[in-house]
Amino acid sequence: MPEAQLAERLMAGETRALARAIRMVEDRDPAIADLLRLVRERAGRARVVGVTGPPGSGKSTLCDQVIERWRAEGHLVGVIAVDPSSPFTGGAILGDRVRMVRHTLDPGVFIRSMAARGHLGGLAAAAREAIRLIDASGRDRCLLETVGVGQSELEVMETADTTVVVTTPVTGDAVQIIKAGILEIADIFVVNKADLPGASKVVRDLKELVRHGKLRTEWSPPVLTTVAETGEGVDDLVAAIERHGDAIAASGELERRRIARLRAEVEAIVVERAAERARSALHEGRMSRELEGDLSRVDPYALAERILNGNSRELTEQ
Amino acid sequence: MPEAQLAERLMAGETRALARAIRMVEDRDPAIADLLRLVRERAGRARVVGVTGPPGSGKSTLCDQVIERWRAEGHLVGVIAVDPSSPFTGGAILGDRVRMVRHTLDPGVFIRSMAARGHLGGLAAAAREAIRLIDASGRDRCLLETVGVGQSELEVMETADTTVVVTTPVTGDAVQIIKAGILEIADIFVVNKADLPGASKVVRDLKELVRHGKLRTEWSPPVLTTVAETGEGVDDLVAAIERHGDAIAASGELERRRIARLRAEVEAIVVERAAERARSALHEGRMSRELEGDLSRVDPYALAERILNGNSRELTEQ
Repeated sequence: MPEAQLAERLMAGETRALARAIRMVEDRDPAIADLLRLVRERAGRARVVGVTGPPGSGKSTLCDQVIERWRAEGHLVGVIAVDPSSPFTGGAILGDRVRMVRHTLDPGVFIRSMAARGHLGGLAAAAREAIRLIDASGRDRCLLETVGVGQSELEVMETADTTVVVTTPVTGDAVQIIKAGILEIADIFVVNKADLPGASKVVRDLKELVRHGKLRTEWSPPVLTTVAETGEGVDDLVAAIERHGDAIAASGELERRRIARLRAEVEAIVVERAAERARSALHEGRMSRELEGDLSRVDPYALAERILNGNSRELTEQ
Repeated sequence: MPEAQLAERLMAGETRALARAIRMVEDRDPAIADLLRLVRERAGRARVVGVTGPPGSGKSTLCDQVIERWRAEGHLVGVIAVDPSSPFTGGAILGDRVRMVRHTLDPGVFIRSMAARGHLGGLAAAAREAIRLIDASGRDRCLLETVGVGQSELEVMETADTTVVVTTPVTGDAVQIIKAGILEIADIFVVNKADLPGASKVVRDLKELVRHGKLRTEWSPPVLTTVAETGEGVDDLVAAIERHGDAIAASGELERRRIARLRAEVEAIVVERAAERARSALHEGRMSRELEGDLSRVDPYALAERILNGNSRELTEQ
């Protein structure tokens, strides 16, 4: 399908066109640049909500509940479950996500699990493009779910308008949250499994943390409690998400975040194209011959500089 | 300290100089390029052994035992414990590594835990540079330990000459290993905690896997059993590591791996410098003004192309 046609179907909200476009993002199809350009002016309306937290905190069940509320309010929903592709935990994470699958029968909900295979800009860059596509397809609420296992997940969260950090009486440790830089990205804290012993202590600790921590905006992150299994507290969470969205739109923070996101996007593309240039120079071009012979004489920094500043002739000539 | 002096001390084997140089790698000190150039011709002699496996598989204890054997044989040892900086598991991983600490009293063992803060080329690039420094400092055995939690750890392992994949009767699941692409990188399998029930089944499964899997070289990965706590089986592991090192040196595979590593190194530097260029163009340069106004009119791909091919004047002019 030519890009123009795909773009049109996508903007008409067709699920299959959206699924196909997101697969193009994952596969690093070169045509994705054109497609994103074609749909760009339709994007920018969806609210993007990131949900992160340690494995076992009940994120998926919570997302499931939030989706249900959004659907009841008539929103169209897109969900990207970011898969960190852990070699050792892959199975468990996928299993966890099966909980959201019941919504796949609802055409108003688009759910996609996404890995960052081959995307040098990383998960964050892939997620950003997927969100743009979901946004352009007319879905006005977008959930971005990650398992918090590293720096790349923090970066993914930075692509959201509103970030929800989920913890539990079992996994919630305020010290960990400070250390990990999570306080800086959290717009809303949720203590899930709040029916377990110790919940009120976690709430207290988090409130203390918010009170004394350095916040990135005037918005002071509320600390909510939920029991995702029963739906308890989910209405308040949905309301807090809307409130945060309104607050940052009014204060200009939304605009600032979107500019920051655009910058990050451009940077990710620069990085990816530079890497492609390096690969082609080092594998096929004339420079590949310099990697023969005495390797200790090769200065990788000097070679890198030449690739970055080289004209295409030097780079590709064989 | 000027780089020339630091390089000299490092090549004389001074621990403090090595520690300082590795800190420069972590901090992305711009002087690291010069330092690496100065010490480059001294590197290339160390055998680099990567050890990976799921949390709780006893990797650190096993490394501890291998270090002890190497020291008894008179080798000088460098250890890089790669820290994936997980926001949620940071504490546990550090705790685990305390087991190796007893060797820090031995001047013949250099141990450093390393994070990839700010290193865009990622953990793998940082580890590669650290290894080069350790190598140049005259340490002839280098251990690279990672917790297997994602793609970046697989990349780290690709920087090793010999990769040891540790599993246990509890954590070892052949299916996971196939899915994760671990078979492709493993040169030696170790079933640790082999005194636990189920060990022989894991060994059988792994042998089956090796027999039917697609191997990357003629070397067929042996499946060894160890009980790291008691040292059982460690002598065999150390012997297998030496055997693998000799085999790949003889077959030319070592040379191929080192060229691949150099390529990856150059690519990582290109990527990092391209990202720096993008950041400065988008934050200070003339292009930053294009990120004002109607964002939907900005084409990130076109902007990226201009940054990548732009002359320095267009990029930095305000």
